[in-house]
Amino acid sequence: MAEENHKPVRLALIGAGLFTKDAYIPLCRRHASTVQVCAVWSRSAKATDLMLPLIQEFAPNAKGYHGDDQLDNLLRDANVDAVAVVLPVQVMLQVAQKCLKAGKHVLQEKPVAQSVEVVSHAIKEFHKCSQQPVWALAENYRSEQGFLKACQMIHELGTIIKLDLVADMPMNSSNKYFGSQWRRDAEGCPGGFVMDSCVHHIAALRALGIAAGLGQVTEASATALSLSEELPPPDTLVGGVKFASGTPASVSITFAGSVLRFSLSVTGTKGSLEVLRGGWEGGKPGYKLSYQTATSNGAKVEHVPFSGLDDELTAFIHQVNQSKGSPAAPADAVYADAVYRTSVEEGARDLAVIEALLQSSQSAGKTVRVKEIPSRPSN
Amino acid sequence: MAEENHKPVRLALIGAGLFTKDAYIPLCRRHASTVQVCAVWSRSAKATDLMLPLIQEFAPNAKGYHGDDQLDNLLRDANVDAVAVVLPVQVMLQVAQKCLKAGKHVLQEKPVAQSVEVVSHAIKEFHKCSQQPVWALAENYRSEQGFLKACQMIHELGTIIKLDLVADMPMNSSNKYFGSQWRRDAEGCPGGFVMDSCVHHIAALRALGIAAGLGQVTEASATALSLSEELPPPDTLVGGVKFASGTPASVSITFAGSVLRFSLSVTGTKGSLEVLRGGWEGGKPGYKLSYQTATSNGAKVEHVPFSGLDDELTAFIHQVNQSKGSPAAPADAVYADAVYRTSVEEGARDLAVIEALLQSSQSAGKTVRVKEIPSRPSN
Repeated sequence: MAEENHKPVRLALIGAGLFTKDAYIPLCRRHASTVQVCAVWSRSAKATDLMLPLIQEFAPNAKGYHGDDQLDNLLRDANVDAVAVVLPVQVMLQVAQKCLKAGKHVLQEKPVAQSVEVVSHAIKEFHKCSQQPVWALAENYRSEQGFLKACQMIHELGTIIKLDLVADMPMNSSNKYFGSQWRRDAEGCPGGFVMDSCVHHIAALRALGIAAGLGQVTEASATALSLSEELPPPDTLVGGVKFASGTPASVSITFAGSVLRFSLSVTGTKGSLEVLRGGWEGGKPGYKLSYQTATSNGAKVEHVPFSGLDDELTAFIHQVNQSKGSPAAPADAVYADAVYRTSVEEGARDLAVIEALLQSSQSAGKTVRVKEIPSRPSN
Repeated sequence: MAEENHKPVRLALIGAGLFTKDAYIPLCRRHASTVQVCAVWSRSAKATDLMLPLIQEFAPNAKGYHGDDQLDNLLRDANVDAVAVVLPVQVMLQVAQKCLKAGKHVLQEKPVAQSVEVVSHAIKEFHKCSQQPVWALAENYRSEQGFLKACQMIHELGTIIKLDLVADMPMNSSNKYFGSQWRRDAEGCPGGFVMDSCVHHIAALRALGIAAGLGQVTEASATALSLSEELPPPDTLVGGVKFASGTPASVSITFAGSVLRFSLSVTGTKGSLEVLRGGWEGGKPGYKLSYQTATSNGAKVEHVPFSGLDDELTAFIHQVNQSKGSPAAPADAVYADAVYRTSVEEGARDLAVIEALLQSSQSAGKTVRVKEIPSRPSN
């Protein structure tokens, strides 16, 4: 399972904010056998200086960089194989493109961009290049075992009738991302927390639909509301989408509530399933996967721990190693659909659904066609 | 709590079908101290003959009637105080009106009528009469303690953000109502099982909305699907409604699935609640009421047994006794809102929402205004 034939991938962390500290540093520490953090860059010297000692605890040779010029230096360093771009959406894609042009493999955080238009253009430009490093999106919901298991199980549910997404994700002063200013910039981050966070929920919903063979999401309609005085509008979206198959899904999301409760369920003619997080059981990190089918002999309930951040990093490293001329891909499920799970195009499709929901909410819930994102040409 | 000052109300059962047998006979047996079944009538002699011995087990003096002429005889009998009309929707309202004109107090089953137009006309006619017996609707969801407790709790949730209704109610050959022909008559029972059964779900949704002060449901939009070859179309409705306050509720209902799962939840700025039936716990009859508020110290989960049929009968008997010149109404919660819970106008409002959802589904999910039902004039 470990990619033993390879030297660790030398990774630079681009961005030194809260998510780098809370997620990427522990993650890279856990994966130190396959990933060697060799550098950290931030726009400000102060942020770099704060982050570097934390990295050097497990990667003593890591160097610090800051500012535009030093980014150029970093990208000229042939010892850097890959970068993780962990920046606000306003600047992230532009930096990711710069890194790709420098020949670095890129793992980029979500949302993939601030608009479908911007990311569509970037994808076109990328395909024009003769040299194409790995460009992967860190959408951890597509890598969560809770959803992946549900995707496998969906084939036992008969014809899929409908999906239901209820996501109550409290965003108040007790949440560490509450203070984030870049999510409150209506122009640079249109939709605020809704756009930034709902791409996750839509990624999970679409993953289940795709696994069930329902095709892409083609239509969306929604009502938007703003209940919290502390959040940029809107903080609530209630509506629905339709898959190409005609299958409907209800979508009901708020950030203005106070109880975390994420429920994604699928109803089929021969069984049902639900992936639940939070709710009345709370506490235990991870998902509760419940299902019942004609053959399951009553309902089954399984706890599935969080796995998305680890598995998406593993999937990225696998792709980087493959691009170096790896042996045939191992059969392990973590790698099987690595390209799909970290696909930038898939991230653009999640964003396109959010854009359509927001657009519909601005015209009294009128049904809006979801913009299509062409698939990556197979070489 | 028992209405000890009164003689039992003498009740005739009008209709001798499956629901009379399975629900009303055990119910009247349980309530024999306040209700004395004095007669049963059916359109056919055979049905009356089958039902009468079951009634005589606990009401030995009950008599059997059948056919139109004998209904007239029954209604002329001054010993009959009240009737329970338990007939297919195609004929129910007409028979209820006949009973009311004969001066009998009426407890009528749901749906209140096959269309809002028909019931609106009947309500107007009823108000014109100088003599007005009790005309009550047996909508048991409005009497279920599970929902009534949720209605009390809703005031602790802060501002209500949204409601979410997911109702997967399998209707297949293992359900005893599956064979019912009158629910498969597109003209006489438009909407089939969706109309017949969804009035319950909408009653519960509206009860929560009204308790929260959101007002009436004013708008609806939905997609309808037909997945089961064994059910009249449609068997699935996915969409949403809006209350007068602007508060949205998602509505996702199917009869084509195979797992019973009814979830009605409310998300507020200071807490959330859910009333759940079936799902992954199954088995135990009744509802699971879960809630969490700023002051509840974590989530609370309570099992609430079914109570609706008993409490709606008690509410009806209470009104009948009051109309006889009862002493002041007792303070017990079972009686407190008896008129509201058994209101024919409320039943018409539930039906109006279903009509709007079905109408929207016939015009590609376009938003449809819900027809208004005037309130009963207070005398």
